[in-house]
Amino acid sequence: MARIVMKFGGTSVGDVARIQNVARRVKREAQAGNEVAVVVSAMSGVTNQLVAWCTEIAPLHDAREYDTVVSTGEQVTIGLLAIALQELGVDARSWMGWQIPIHSDGVHGKARILSIDTDEMLKRLAKGQVAVVAGFQGLGPDNRVTTLGRGGSDTSAVALAAALKADRCDIYTDVDGVYTTDPRIVTKAKKLDKITYEEMLELASVGAKVLQTRSVEMAMKHRVRVQVLSSFSDEPGTLVCDEDEIVEKALVSGIAYSRDEAKITLVGVEDKPGVAARIFGPLAEAAINVDMIVQNVSHDGATTDLTFTVGKADLEKAKQVIEKAKSGFGFKALAADSNVVKVSVIGVGMRSHAGVALTMFKTLAEKGINIQVISTSEIKVSVLIAEDYTELALRALHTAYELDSA
Amino acid sequence: MARIVMKFGGTSVGDVARIQNVARRVKREAQAGNEVAVVVSAMSGVTNQLVAWCTEIAPLHDAREYDTVVSTGEQVTIGLLAIALQELGVDARSWMGWQIPIHSDGVHGKARILSIDTDEMLKRLAKGQVAVVAGFQGLGPDNRVTTLGRGGSDTSAVALAAALKADRCDIYTDVDGVYTTDPRIVTKAKKLDKITYEEMLELASVGAKVLQTRSVEMAMKHRVRVQVLSSFSDEPGTLVCDEDEIVEKALVSGIAYSRDEAKITLVGVEDKPGVAARIFGPLAEAAINVDMIVQNVSHDGATTDLTFTVGKADLEKAKQVIEKAKSGFGFKALAADSNVVKVSVIGVGMRSHAGVALTMFKTLAEKGINIQVISTSEIKVSVLIAEDYTELALRALHTAYELDSA
Repeated sequence: MARIVMKFGGTSVGDVARIQNVARRVKREAQAGNEVAVVVSAMSGVTNQLVAWCTEIAPLHDAREYDTVVSTGEQVTIGLLAIALQELGVDARSWMGWQIPIHSDGVHGKARILSIDTDEMLKRLAKGQVAVVAGFQGLGPDNRVTTLGRGGSDTSAVALAAALKADRCDIYTDVDGVYTTDPRIVTKAKKLDKITYEEMLELASVGAKVLQTRSVEMAMKHRVRVQVLSSFSDEPGTLVCDEDEIVEKALVSGIAYSRDEAKITLVGVEDKPGVAARIFGPLAEAAINVDMIVQNVSHDGATTDLTFTVGKADLEKAKQVIEKAKSGFGFKALAADSNVVKVSVIGVGMRSHAGVALTMFKTLAEKGINIQVISTSEIKVSVLIAEDYTELALRALHTAYELDSA
Repeated sequence: MARIVMKFGGTSVGDVARIQNVARRVKREAQAGNEVAVVVSAMSGVTNQLVAWCTEIAPLHDAREYDTVVSTGEQVTIGLLAIALQELGVDARSWMGWQIPIHSDGVHGKARILSIDTDEMLKRLAKGQVAVVAGFQGLGPDNRVTTLGRGGSDTSAVALAAALKADRCDIYTDVDGVYTTDPRIVTKAKKLDKITYEEMLELASVGAKVLQTRSVEMAMKHRVRVQVLSSFSDEPGTLVCDEDEIVEKALVSGIAYSRDEAKITLVGVEDKPGVAARIFGPLAEAAINVDMIVQNVSHDGATTDLTFTVGKADLEKAKQVIEKAKSGFGFKALAADSNVVKVSVIGVGMRSHAGVALTMFKTLAEKGINIQVISTSEIKVSVLIAEDYTELALRALHTAYELDSA
């Protein structure tokens, strides 16, 4: 017997038959004696239609009215799912964000959850009633409906699990778990039984789009055990949890990649204090996110080369910003390259084991792949390489770290 | 300068272009210096889709969840209309039932409005902000969304107008006003400039489906001046108002008809006290609405004939109920006929003028139309005739009461 939050995304509740399928899954958990709260998204396609209407009327529209419109998608799903559960003989009721309430800040369109009042819901859960909760929405300080931004239902689920002190938060998606790397590229990729929050965050931030980053951050902060699993199969999924729960820690848990990278190199930058700030200040002001940054040791004592990466979509804008700010620092030449990919090996095991980075460099060298930029964090080593080598690098690294399935 | 409630039905807000059209009409009233609250329905077709989903999952479903689902239709429209108004430079905000709140009783699916808190809205109206209000919905005592039943947006508008003490409640529909009779049958039917609440009620209850009956009752109770007009033209409509406002009262204002009638005659019913109760009691318990009732004088001192009408859909059920209850009163034979139509002439003028009924009987006799049942009220004379004569009767009566347009 446990207290569980289950979350189903738009594809899982895409039509009446799928909602009925979700109801059967929920019934199973409830009948096993668990206290169950279910968080659901809008039926797939619905939110896009609602957003399209808002945008058709006014490309720049009042975010409060946008929230009023788009939050209806989840509202429809909770009512239908409650009806489907009752039809199966399961006591259930729907909850909109404002009814619980899920208090959020007033940043309409991408609000953050501040607190959740769970008293009434806990009483009803204890009586065996299933709570069917609209994801993605909250109640702002102005008594108006807020939405958490696209993908916010994951965050709703984790926040609710934290507030309810749930034993587990099961996120049902159209994939059946978290893999060691992209199975479309590496056929020998394995599904992970468990992964730490930190690893999941690194995986998510470099492009493995299974869970929304914010929901993982929130899970880590409140120590919510999150299970990622498929709503279309009965296979066990991947548990995202605390490091302590993972007895046998792998040196490397996964290999991620991101094609959304562009490299900028400034050649012959004056090597004096304050230059970095004068370069990255204007980029930050222009809301351009800079990722990897490498500065070489000055070779002539007066100038140095500076390399950094930005999102592919920001490349042109970044070049313009730098040309404009040039008078503040000065450089000889600007070289840009968007045919690059960032490959990262991730694992909490590398905290206590040396040699992880070395294995990566050796493996890539053996395949004749040139490393353009390197950056490391406590549990990650990332390299920038030419985009053409993506598949080759992923497969070679997957084998080198002994991640291949039998 | 006035305070106006405007109401637009589903057809008037059926797509984005029509919502923008509504926004232009609202802007015109607001720019004329009026305080404006707008009540809107769901985009046409949306409510039907939502109801269909509920019914597909469970033909008999929890009315609270039904309300959660179907109330989203209006919520979408208010957000979109607020955006459209803002795009035209008009200050506007949307209001859901629970935000105002519009307090209702807890009869989900067909709730009744109990009270409306207008303080905050009045403040904003005074500052020139247009209130865009979701029709059809309220907040129940259980803090859950209620709906007022189909067509409830008219009631929302009139209730809001009463609470705001509005000078006028303009109901925009797909017809351009109230006619002396059905223009599809009588081409010489005239649009009425004004009509009393009482007449409108009689017209509505006998089948002229322009305004929902409950909304007219509420308007009469609170003396809300209601104007019915078209959202697709700029013609003036019909004002539904107090008798005092109508200087030149017509003897007969309109002629209505209802095909939804079936006649039941019980021949040879025992003529003794309590028989009527024993007949109509079981019908009432079976939720069958009985309309016209005629009992002849006893012809043999022991038995009498009793004729009454029920809705066509209830005929078979009514026959069963009566056969079952027969032991309580007894009759010789039961005759049923569903090929009947009820034709009514309506006018407050007949209170002070004799001869209205006589004109009706004479006119029908001249055309060879047999009257099967007659019933009268203070401002209405209704007759039941064979359905085949509907058009002939309507045209003849329209001419006889001098209602034909030039």
